[in-house]
Amino acid sequence: MNFKEEYKKRTEYVEEVLRKYLPRAEGYQSVIMEAMEYSLMAGGKRIRPILMCEAYRLFGGEGRTIEPFMAAIEMIHTYSLVHDDLPAMDNDEYRRGRKTTHIVYGEDMGILSGDALLNYAFETACASFDMEESSYKSVGRALQVLSRKAGIYGMIGGQVVDVKESGNAVSGEVLDFIYRLKTSALIEASMMVGAILAGAGEADVKRMEQIAGKIGLAFQIQDDILDVTSTTEMLGKPVHSDEKNEKTTYVTWKGIEKAKEDVERMTQGAVSELKAFPAKDEFLVLLLESLVYRKK
Amino acid sequence: MNFKEEYKKRTEYVEEVLRKYLPRAEGYQSVIMEAMEYSLMAGGKRIRPILMCEAYRLFGGEGRTIEPFMAAIEMIHTYSLVHDDLPAMDNDEYRRGRKTTHIVYGEDMGILSGDALLNYAFETACASFDMEESSYKSVGRALQVLSRKAGIYGMIGGQVVDVKESGNAVSGEVLDFIYRLKTSALIEASMMVGAILAGAGEADVKRMEQIAGKIGLAFQIQDDILDVTSTTEMLGKPVHSDEKNEKTTYVTWKGIEKAKEDVERMTQGAVSELKAFPAKDEFLVLLLESLVYRKK
Repeated sequence: MNFKEEYKKRTEYVEEVLRKYLPRAEGYQSVIMEAMEYSLMAGGKRIRPILMCEAYRLFGGEGRTIEPFMAAIEMIHTYSLVHDDLPAMDNDEYRRGRKTTHIVYGEDMGILSGDALLNYAFETACASFDMEESSYKSVGRALQVLSRKAGIYGMIGGQVVDVKESGNAVSGEVLDFIYRLKTSALIEASMMVGAILAGAGEADVKRMEQIAGKIGLAFQIQDDILDVTSTTEMLGKPVHSDEKNEKTTYVTWKGIEKAKEDVERMTQGAVSELKAFPAKDEFLVLLLESLVYRKK
Repeated sequence: MNFKEEYKKRTEYVEEVLRKYLPRAEGYQSVIMEAMEYSLMAGGKRIRPILMCEAYRLFGGEGRTIEPFMAAIEMIHTYSLVHDDLPAMDNDEYRRGRKTTHIVYGEDMGILSGDALLNYAFETACASFDMEESSYKSVGRALQVLSRKAGIYGMIGGQVVDVKESGNAVSGEVLDFIYRLKTSALIEASMMVGAILAGAGEADVKRMEQIAGKIGLAFQIQDDILDVTSTTEMLGKPVHSDEKNEKTTYVTWKGIEKAKEDVERMTQGAVSELKAFPAKDEFLVLLLESLVYRKK
């Protein structure tokens, strides 16, 4: 398998799905649709919808019921970045080399377009109810998981603690909490929703949650490692930012060697659990491994 | 019927439902639950959940499936106020005589607690799927309506145009658009969701949408009238604020007499359409009339 080619194919598919579910810019409120598109189509790894789709295929999912949820999870991820960039939060003027949404559209529209993306994520996911091959029950269950993992017991909860503790030295326990909620929760939602919509049973969904939890954690720790070991040129964003902000990270907590070991161990754990499923997904395994060896 | 007593009973029921579905303040992220409670339990007329519950009863709904949605619509209404009060929006320090959320918890938590309330609204509504008497299909349909009416084709869409046109003289057409989306859309969602969860057919849901649209519009115009005719003491907020901000309102557009006539006409229209349903709801009729004759 040519991994790079396969990955490219999948990101193109995600872009296609996103375009399909983006609202058309029309009406007196068209500026909000433009701002949504601006932030949503700014690129990015599209890891969440790709993982969701792979999990769906792994459990035999074949239809298009998954597509509204693929768009929804990326909308949720994107709204969190838009709000995170606001002056009252991280106050970032650039993301991925482009001006942030509130810089282009104003702070009021930055707030409103984040709200719009979050709301539209649920509106979009609800489109699955109307699809021929969907079961109302699994779409309902998928919505429960998505909303839980995106909320105060998931991503928002992690973000709250991250913001609250910003500038403080935090314990390993708190750091672990932040990573599990802020980063892992949406990865868990992705893989669980994929499994649920394909009709997987509760036990398999639970296993996917655990696998995704490891992946999310490894992914976040790898971010910390790259901040120390990479260059600004390679990463496309300033390195050593954690050190500058005196931020507690997995690397400052455990040291760089242990951090690298843990990423390796968690990834291999996730990979071997994945391989234990009857169905195989070679691409998914390669994707997980690429997340560890990524340079940006 | 003693309307005041019946109204009090219903608001107490709403408060009880809200308390039941509010998340307990716990975990490292407990500050977000506190901020959510602070804004959600700050009082208010609770018109949306009351209307939702009445619509549910009107179509024979008897269970508790409606409760998660009653909490959800009030959470959505509340998050919109929390974000509306932010410095980049209306920059309000007080609401209903209490400090606004971002003043008490900081601007970052103001943003996050609004996000949290919106997300938790959907998380809460999804609890209906697990209730014994629920049909997955009607809960799914109710979620579709709720998310649509709260989003860019509903409340957020109206808010966007209101913010964008702030300080400009707007046409009657634009004003009508703002009112229909910013205010009416959530009233429509309330009455439609009530009907849907009680098992009403599509035609009846459509009629409820039209009735609710009139009520929402009349309610908003009454707001404009009170800003001109009431006193700060009576209203609990500064009057003549529209004039001061040179804001186009229904009153500046049509004149005070025509505005009063229109409120009367729309309300009577809604009331007579309501009375045409086989089932009667005396309280609902009195509630609609009280909204016209309200002094605050």
